[in-house]
Amino acid sequence: MINKLIRNIQKTGAPIVVGLDPMLSYIPEHLQKQAYAEYGETLKGAAEAVWLFNKEIIDHIHDLIPAVKPQIAMYEQFGVEGMIVFQRTVEYCKSKGLVVIGDVKRGDIGSTSEAYAVGHLGGVQVGSNFCRGFDEDFITVNPYLGSDGVKPFIKVCKEEKKGIFVLVKTSNPSSGEFQDRIVKETADGADKEDDGQNTAKDRPLYEIVGEKVAEWGAGCMGDDYSYVGAVVGATYPEQGRILRKIMPKALILVPGYGAQGGKGADLVHFFNEDGLGAIVNSSRGIIAAYKQEEYAKYGAESFAEASRAAVAAMKEDIAGAFAKR
Amino acid sequence: MINKLIRNIQKTGAPIVVGLDPMLSYIPEHLQKQAYAEYGETLKGAAEAVWLFNKEIIDHIHDLIPAVKPQIAMYEQFGVEGMIVFQRTVEYCKSKGLVVIGDVKRGDIGSTSEAYAVGHLGGVQVGSNFCRGFDEDFITVNPYLGSDGVKPFIKVCKEEKKGIFVLVKTSNPSSGEFQDRIVKETADGADKEDDGQNTAKDRPLYEIVGEKVAEWGAGCMGDDYSYVGAVVGATYPEQGRILRKIMPKALILVPGYGAQGGKGADLVHFFNEDGLGAIVNSSRGIIAAYKQEEYAKYGAESFAEASRAAVAAMKEDIAGAFAKR
Repeated sequence: MINKLIRNIQKTGAPIVVGLDPMLSYIPEHLQKQAYAEYGETLKGAAEAVWLFNKEIIDHIHDLIPAVKPQIAMYEQFGVEGMIVFQRTVEYCKSKGLVVIGDVKRGDIGSTSEAYAVGHLGGVQVGSNFCRGFDEDFITVNPYLGSDGVKPFIKVCKEEKKGIFVLVKTSNPSSGEFQDRIVKETADGADKEDDGQNTAKDRPLYEIVGEKVAEWGAGCMGDDYSYVGAVVGATYPEQGRILRKIMPKALILVPGYGAQGGKGADLVHFFNEDGLGAIVNSSRGIIAAYKQEEYAKYGAESFAEASRAAVAAMKEDIAGAFAKR
Repeated sequence: MINKLIRNIQKTGAPIVVGLDPMLSYIPEHLQKQAYAEYGETLKGAAEAVWLFNKEIIDHIHDLIPAVKPQIAMYEQFGVEGMIVFQRTVEYCKSKGLVVIGDVKRGDIGSTSEAYAVGHLGGVQVGSNFCRGFDEDFITVNPYLGSDGVKPFIKVCKEEKKGIFVLVKTSNPSSGEFQDRIVKETADGADKEDDGQNTAKDRPLYEIVGEKVAEWGAGCMGDDYSYVGAVVGATYPEQGRILRKIMPKALILVPGYGAQGGKGADLVHFFNEDGLGAIVNSSRGIIAAYKQEEYAKYGAESFAEASRAAVAAMKEDIAGAFAKR
């Protein structure tokens, strides 16, 4: 699947993933009305509105992009009805040839991570049948519980030739609160006394997590990149530059472009010299483009055409940044 | 809800939460057959087997315990059908007067955490209706993204008088990989040069997270404990003792008892002098008790009676440890 993702990026010339993170407030009134007319002002009605919105956007942009990233929280907020539409969205995107990155940020102790892994990437044996749940191509994973919380995902990735992106340095303002903490290096000599000489090796937690990502990923390589990628926010380009070197074989999923403040020029640090190695996410900036002044001319009825124009503009912005590299 | 949880603990005399974490392999054959006869060897059949299993256990133990903790991953592994049974389980437990802690370990950037918070603890406005999704009483939260990933949960907790348990030191073997890293203290003087004099303040990451839990919880207190609790594994009693002092007003949810290796005697450190302050989880040890030699006499048909006996034994084990305190 990592090879398919890289091929899709090369084919479209767009290292872009569109975040399908629909808030009700993004969804044009005519679609909400249509959905509520059928299912009432209920969770089912809201979920239907999300589905109508997603489908029209996918239909308008699928040929321009390699991948989508539905944020499961935006579906989970509508309970079971939202989860049904999450699954429908995953299936529909796959039917259009898109790689689907489930932004689920799961992670737990070993046996529990295994259940998440089979639910999102693999399947469960029920009697004589092998049954698949949400069946995304990639998912995002939270590393706070350490290796034994991450390895069950990698096991399923190997079986299914799928992949994960591990949170390393997230795009949000307070990501540094724990991720940037300077850690005293004791891993290589945990039982050695600190002789005060090892200050040179002290480094932020995100670098240590990045090293683990490189280690976890070494055992499951696609042609050029590993099944194990990383999440590093566009809002932290300097950290992106460092992490790019620490994890040379990890595809970096870069959120935070656009609405969160990351700019095209910031992005070049996340890529390798071959122009690959990263895939940049934009959510609101694409799916709610019609609400921005720049695309207001499309109007709410043509919201999906505004999204298409916003994808084209994002592609140009990134290409422009590369040209100046 | 924190007050209700404390009252439930006092009423039952059992600082115990039962983890409803059903693996298919725990479910007696007769229940699996019954479910597959109705729905086939499908995800729906598997989910139905989980439901039959859960219901019989809840019916047999609800009067002995204050709370249950369904682990959502064990439901999510069955896709949408599993989520339906997760919701049914939450509702059924609440109807029995149990406090429900959704073990969901969610956490993301602010706007996304907000969606998780309304999906699990609050509700969404759909047109003129306020609609609730999974509607647990408490959930567990992953802190890796820092304050702005946690605060949206706290906001909803205040509105709904509900609560969260933040992962501080997890029970799994590799929890130390990141959580135990020794962090150089720079928070109070991030722009001061390290003069080599502040070694005394260096401490493990989990202590820093614990301090944040105390800080986040100070603004939303129930009568004696905060809406913001913490997860600290029974497998790390020494860290439990330290964290108990760092977060005096946080109820500590203690996983890792029983099957994961935590013992009654280890648990006293997690409690305050008043005998409150912690709630100890056991999952497999209770729900799959009939598979243990000690309870084999009940047989698979009477699995729920075995669970009831295991709850009574766990209660005694903890009381015995207190008596020796």
